[in-house]
Amino acid sequence: MPRYALKVEYQGAPFSGWQKQKELPSVQGAIEAALARLEPRAHTIAAAGRTDAGVHALGQVAQCDMARDWDPFRLSEALNHHLKPAPVAIVACAQVDDSWHARFSAVERQYLFRILMRRAPATHEAGQVWRINRTLNVAAMQAGADQLIGRHDFTTFRSSICQAASPLKTLDELRVQAVDGFSGPEVHFHVRARSFLHNQVRSFVGTLERVGAGAWSPDDVGAALRARDRAACGPVCPPHGLYLAAVRYPQSPFG
Amino acid sequence: MPRYALKVEYQGAPFSGWQKQKELPSVQGAIEAALARLEPRAHTIAAAGRTDAGVHALGQVAQCDMARDWDPFRLSEALNHHLKPAPVAIVACAQVDDSWHARFSAVERQYLFRILMRRAPATHEAGQVWRINRTLNVAAMQAGADQLIGRHDFTTFRSSICQAASPLKTLDELRVQAVDGFSGPEVHFHVRARSFLHNQVRSFVGTLERVGAGAWSPDDVGAALRARDRAACGPVCPPHGLYLAAVRYPQSPFG
Repeated sequence: MPRYALKVEYQGAPFSGWQKQKELPSVQGAIEAALARLEPRAHTIAAAGRTDAGVHALGQVAQCDMARDWDPFRLSEALNHHLKPAPVAIVACAQVDDSWHARFSAVERQYLFRILMRRAPATHEAGQVWRINRTLNVAAMQAGADQLIGRHDFTTFRSSICQAASPLKTLDELRVQAVDGFSGPEVHFHVRARSFLHNQVRSFVGTLERVGAGAWSPDDVGAALRARDRAACGPVCPPHGLYLAAVRYPQSPFG
Repeated sequence: MPRYALKVEYQGAPFSGWQKQKELPSVQGAIEAALARLEPRAHTIAAAGRTDAGVHALGQVAQCDMARDWDPFRLSEALNHHLKPAPVAIVACAQVDDSWHARFSAVERQYLFRILMRRAPATHEAGQVWRINRTLNVAAMQAGADQLIGRHDFTTFRSSICQAASPLKTLDELRVQAVDGFSGPEVHFHVRARSFLHNQVRSFVGTLERVGAGAWSPDDVGAALRARDRAACGPVCPPHGLYLAAVRYPQSPFG
């Protein structure tokens, strides 16, 4: 059976997350239902990142195994046709080797978190940013973020239901950027690692927001990390500012 | 009665347009209903631009007359509270003179039109851009746009139901910009004039898209303008890429 890599973009709001769940809408379920319109049978697809409820994707990567040989472009067009009107789109598609796996072949995940800083409710970006009333100090947040870079025991920044075998992870990038957004000033967090613990990015951002607001010092972030204690974490921020931005492989399947 | 200027942001999709209509949801109706929660009586507000169904705003300006003296910030917060969950937000509020009028005091309207150029359906920007499959030639569109700048009889670019007394208008800016958008390459059209004819911006963009696609030459735009004939216009583009971006007054009421 030929295998295809799918680059997938979606809005998280209508879904209970990536992973298929009985009686709840999921991104995986939506794509598997579209696949069943092309080849009527049960489909099971795998993805690089199992995003939580409300989390978006710009560049999730999934794989599917087909019975027929599909032209990759036609496969993406047919899936997009059957995915309508769900806010899920296949933005790239490529045939890959049987040995390639969307999850296990991935060597890096990149996340983006967006904060919109203004008083008024978001309209155009409603559900797509975390809107807060405060103006955040970007330099202070970057100083706090710098203390998280590298290989650490991230127990502090890991949800209590995280199933990873070890809390040891290597954080390669946590860059804080001021952005002139479409409806006001935004802060973007660019986060990059081989893999993440459950709720790790949202725990980072929630903690760094406290630094940006002046409630925590940058050094408090390092102290929280060294505590290796979930209770030392700042408040976990909401999911709707989070995007799985990209997944990297030794060689991009999409060329 | 103290008068207040309101800077209003909204998504156009849920509304039949700015203007109140019996039995149809409108932005004006939503704001007047919120005002009635603050001061129970009939309210009638005026705005600088009566946007069509599906057209968005980043900086619409409206006015309201209140019985009580309101602190402008508290008035905007109270309105935003009662506007929820409609995608309408008061992003600025200021008390103004009785002689100031949101529509008649305005000296310039600025519109933005967004095109997203990609094959896959839009997800994050669904309903907020005009998505097209083609890649457009920005330089050619700018060359066509340059032929529209200045004072002209814009009969060609005016809807047949336009109620303006004269088709003579002065177009101050029509700038075409390539933008690296959130989910792909975009083209933005920045359009500026004292006032516009009905469907003028959408007639411009629909015509210039034909230039960008190579179906029209830039000079064809000038010929269409000189024809002073609605039939010479290119196809009018859809409303959902259009934003009333800003309204200018001799002195900004918002400081």
